[in-house]
Order: sequence, then structure tokens, then C-alpha cells
Amino acid sequence: MHKIKVFAPATVANVGPGFDVFGFAVEQPGDEVVATLSDTRGVRVIEITGDNGLLSKDADKNTAAVAAKGLLEHLGSNQGIELSVHKKMPLGSGLGSSAASAVAGVVAANELLGAPLSRRELLPFTMEGERVACGAAHADNVAPSLLGGFILIRSYDPLDVIRIPTPENLWCTVVHPHIEVRTEDARRIMPKEISIPTGIAQWGNTAGLIAGLFANDLELIGRSLVDHVAEPARSQLIPGFTEVKKTALRLGALGSSISGSGPSVFALSDSQEKAKRIGQAMHDAWTDRYSLDSDVFVSQINKEGPRIISQ
Amino acid sequence: MHKIKVFAPATVANVGPGFDVFGFAVEQPGDEVVATLSDTRGVRVIEITGDNGLLSKDADKNTAAVAAKGLLEHLGSNQGIELSVHKKMPLGSGLGSSAASAVAGVVAANELLGAPLSRRELLPFTMEGERVACGAAHADNVAPSLLGGFILIRSYDPLDVIRIPTPENLWCTVVHPHIEVRTEDARRIMPKEISIPTGIAQWGNTAGLIAGLFANDLELIGRSLVDHVAEPARSQLIPGFTEVKKTALRLGALGSSISGSGPSVFALSDSQEKAKRIGQAMHDAWTDRYSLDSDVFVSQINKEGPRIISQ
Repeated sequence: MHKIKVFAPATVANVGPGFDVFGFAVEQPGDEVVATLSDTRGVRVIEITGDNGLLSKDADKNTAAVAAKGLLEHLGSNQGIELSVHKKMPLGSGLGSSAASAVAGVVAANELLGAPLSRRELLPFTMEGERVACGAAHADNVAPSLLGGFILIRSYDPLDVIRIPTPENLWCTVVHPHIEVRTEDARRIMPKEISIPTGIAQWGNTAGLIAGLFANDLELIGRSLVDHVAEPARSQLIPGFTEVKKTALRLGALGSSISGSGPSVFALSDSQEKAKRIGQAMHDAWTDRYSLDSDVFVSQINKEGPRIISQ
Repeated sequence: MHKIKVFAPATVANVGPGFDVFGFAVEQPGDEVVATLSDTRGVRVIEITGDNGLLSKDADKNTAAVAAKGLLEHLGSNQGIELSVHKKMPLGSGLGSSAASAVAGVVAANELLGAPLSRRELLPFTMEGERVACGAAHADNVAPSLLGGFILIRSYDPLDVIRIPTPENLWCTVVHPHIEVRTEDARRIMPKEISIPTGIAQWGNTAGLIAGLFANDLELIGRSLVDHVAEPARSQLIPGFTEVKKTALRLGALGSSISGSGPSVFALSDSQEKAKRIGQAMHDAWTDRYSLDSDVFVSQINKEGPRIISQ
């Protein structure tokens, strides 16, 4: 094998109450990376599509390349690898765009080299990709993109990544309104402290969400999708958030909140038909009342993580 | 049936990171209540033993009587019931003493009346018992005492009480040092606010604890038994806490923290032999270095809740 194409899924981080500790992967959208063996040592980015020229091809600044380079260095490999990065989802949308590229890049590189490391062992390299993209080595997007399903990051020091079961009939709608939320703003607007009652509500709901996922209790999952910490602050940066969320709940969503740091909003539901109907209604609410266009993605939870598309 | 004797178990609330939302019941210690039908309408406390004269026999102030009265009023019953309350555990120890009495009282009354309500339906009456004893209708002791096992209180409004599975080989050591921690002090010493990073660590660990219990992963349960909120504050009221906890961990406890608001300290472990050894060592640490006597209780997790002892 000298060439491989890998898809890595988008992810919804935080998932209501699980601020900075929880995320899941969806079947679509996602990014694709083509990796090709080359005679020139090191990692090069030879092509990026779908980014409107926003991303760097510099191998020290591109998240896919940084992740692949980290792997090669870890293995002490002299191999040369060329990457073509195909962005198939919006950048800066709260869907883990940089994470998906990092995961696709390092998984493609690992496969090209004969898969010396397990998927889980690739996690540190994807986190370094996140550091380049976001300034911090967060795992709540890269871990679910890499491993699939629902992922809990219990702790960073030491890193403790735990896979939580995925109920069968769980569908996700993610709607990305065409506005920009700057990462600095999403950070700055967060409270510095929370009251003890707020904290109690938050860890009660995080615990309820985990219990609901293990017990396959969709009602409990829905009741637990309440975020008292990030959503009240960050929703101020998303015009129409309250109305769009209410629309999703009125149409039968189990729960709804901001995807990552936004502006995308996700909703969980118990059927494909409902998930599609909810997506259309959320889209229409933004169009009709806020003159905002949006992309709608409907899929099941991705349980497998990245997929090899061709080789 | 005109007379019944019921045992209700002691409980460990908070359980590390689950401040105010989590608790479990133990096989011992616990309180016993004897309920007898009488011809005089209403609930009377005719005897209390084991309380050193500290508890009130006034049916409006005694937690067992308040719970039983609430049931009778709910049922519109004209029945008369006399209660004998036998305290079989230390008061003010952080082991849910008032909760166990309330649960034993209302379960005994319910059984005497032919069990018109389910155990779960009795919960509101036990919470009213807690209100009389503690000033607030907390559920994190009464719910596990009443239902057995590990219990999550996801929310109070509306009340959402969720049973979490109990791993088979889980043993609990609780050691009660003979000091008094006043409830006012335990409350006053709590921080009013926590930082976001502290919150993230807390709900990460709460989520990990729930996942460990569902997955029967004792190591994960142990790693998750970290409390960044109440323990750092309240441990200051317990002389020798740090050393006693370290002793438990050194002897192989999965984890250890304060039971409820203290001063009792609990440790979880994976065998009876280890749990006993840990209890002895915790006891000795308090005796040798702090001249504090203590009671040691070792048992499995109580999965059934209250037990009818005789009728």
C-alpha cells in the first residue's frame, strides 16, 4: 500500500452538562485525508480543499500534518508522507473541524505504515494537532472522532479516556448557522466561577447523562441534557438560540444544546424521521426570523470512528 | 399483623465527587423501629433507645414519627401507630442517622397498614423527616436507605431519583471517630463558589464514578473517588483526616473520602479481608497519633434497603 484515503467524523463536544469532559462522534459530516508514501523524509501537505484558503499547508501549523509528524517521530520513522486534506465540513462551526482533520491525518499515516499503533495509542498525536489549531491540547473532540461513540475525558493528568455505550436508536441533528463565533469570544464570555448550587446541578446532570447512556434510557438522557454553565453564557453569541432550541424540543427532541463552543446547535432524538423534521424546523426558524442560512446534518451516532475509504 | 420491627441501613452520602447528588447504603450499621397498631388515632413515639437522651419523642420533632405521620395523612388514615425507635448507630456521625430512623419508621408504618404504597412512593415522607432533623429535605441519605444500593439524585425540582447498579465485590469500611462536627460548621466551611476548572474536575469524576459502577470497573470507581469541592474544606474539621485516608489507600482501598458531612470517613475495597484490615488500620491511626477512639463498620453495599426483622 502506498496511498490511502481516510474519513474522520465530526464531533459534538460538551453534550449539555459535560463541559470540557464529554463528546460524541456523528456519521456525517467529517473530513477526508489522502496520505501517500513519498521518498522525501517527513510530512508535507500538498493540497487542501474545502477550506476557502483559510488553512496553512505548513506542516508545523496544519493540524493533520502535526498529528502525522508526531506519529512518525514517535516511531523514529524516516518515511516520507504527503497529505491531501479535504475539508468536508464548515470551519469554526463547533463541530470539531480541526479534530477531524488531525484524526484523519494520523490514522491515514498509521495505516500507511502498517498500523504499528492502535487507534487509542494515536490519541496523544491528535491532541498535539488540537494544540496547534486551538492553543490547547483538548481531547473532547479528537477522542470521540478517533474512537467513535460517546467519550468521557475523566481527567487530563493523567489522561483518562473512557468509552460510554451508545444506545441503538439515537439520532443526532446538528445545524450550523452561517455566523462566526470567535474562539476568544466564546472563551471570554464564560464565567470564571460558578456557585455551589450550579455545580451540584451540573454534576447531577452529567451523572444522569452517563447513567442514561448505560441504561439505554432515552428519557433520562433527555432530562439530563441541561447545561447550567456554558450554555447560558455562550448562547448570547448565537442569535435565535433560545428559539431554535425550543423549536427542537417542541418537535420531540430528547434534548438540545450548543455543539462545542458553537455556533452549531445539536439535538438528539429517537428516530431518523424525527431528527430530519427537527433539522428542517431549526433551519427554518433561523431563516424566517433571523435571516440566517444554515447547514443541517442528520445522522446516527458514529460508533466506529474513522473509516478507510479507499487504499 | 399489629406489630412489626424494621431495620433501615446507614448511608454514605456524597461518595467523593457526588456532593449533594449521590449516596449508597451499607449492610451495617442501621436503626430499628418497632411499630405497633394502637386504638388512639395518630403517631406516638413511646420509646427511644441508644440516643443518650438526645432525641425528642415529640411526634412533630422526631424524624421517624414525622415520616410515619406524613404517610398516614397522605392515606387519610385514622389508624393509630406507636413507634419504638432503637438507635443502633452514632448520631451526628455523617452516616445518615436521622435518615435511617425516618426510613425505618415509615416503612414499618406502611407495612402495618398492608403496604398500600411502594418503597419508592414513601420517599417524600422520609424527606420530610430529614427536614425536621436537618432543616432541609435532602434525599441523598433517605433515598439510598429506602431503596438500597447506589442512588443518584439528578434533580430536586422535579425530584429525579435514579438507581445505579452495584458491583458484586464491593466492600465498604466506615470509621467514625469520636469527635463532634457541628452541622453549622460543616456548612459554613464550604466554599460559596468554585472555579470552572474545579467544576470540570468534579463532574468528570462524578461521570467516571457512574461509569465505573455501571461497567463493574472497580479501578475506575477508585480513580473517580476524588472530591475537589467538599473534602478540601470539611477535612479541616476532622483531625488526622489526611493521614487516615492515606492509610486506607496504602492498604489497597479503591478510594476514600468523608462520609456525608463527616466526621466519619469511608473507604471502598474489593474484598472483605481488605476492608477489615483497612478499618483496623484507620482506627489505629486515629488512636495512636490523635488519641481518638473510633467505631469501625465493615460491610457490603446494602442492595435491598430496609429489612423486616420480625412481625
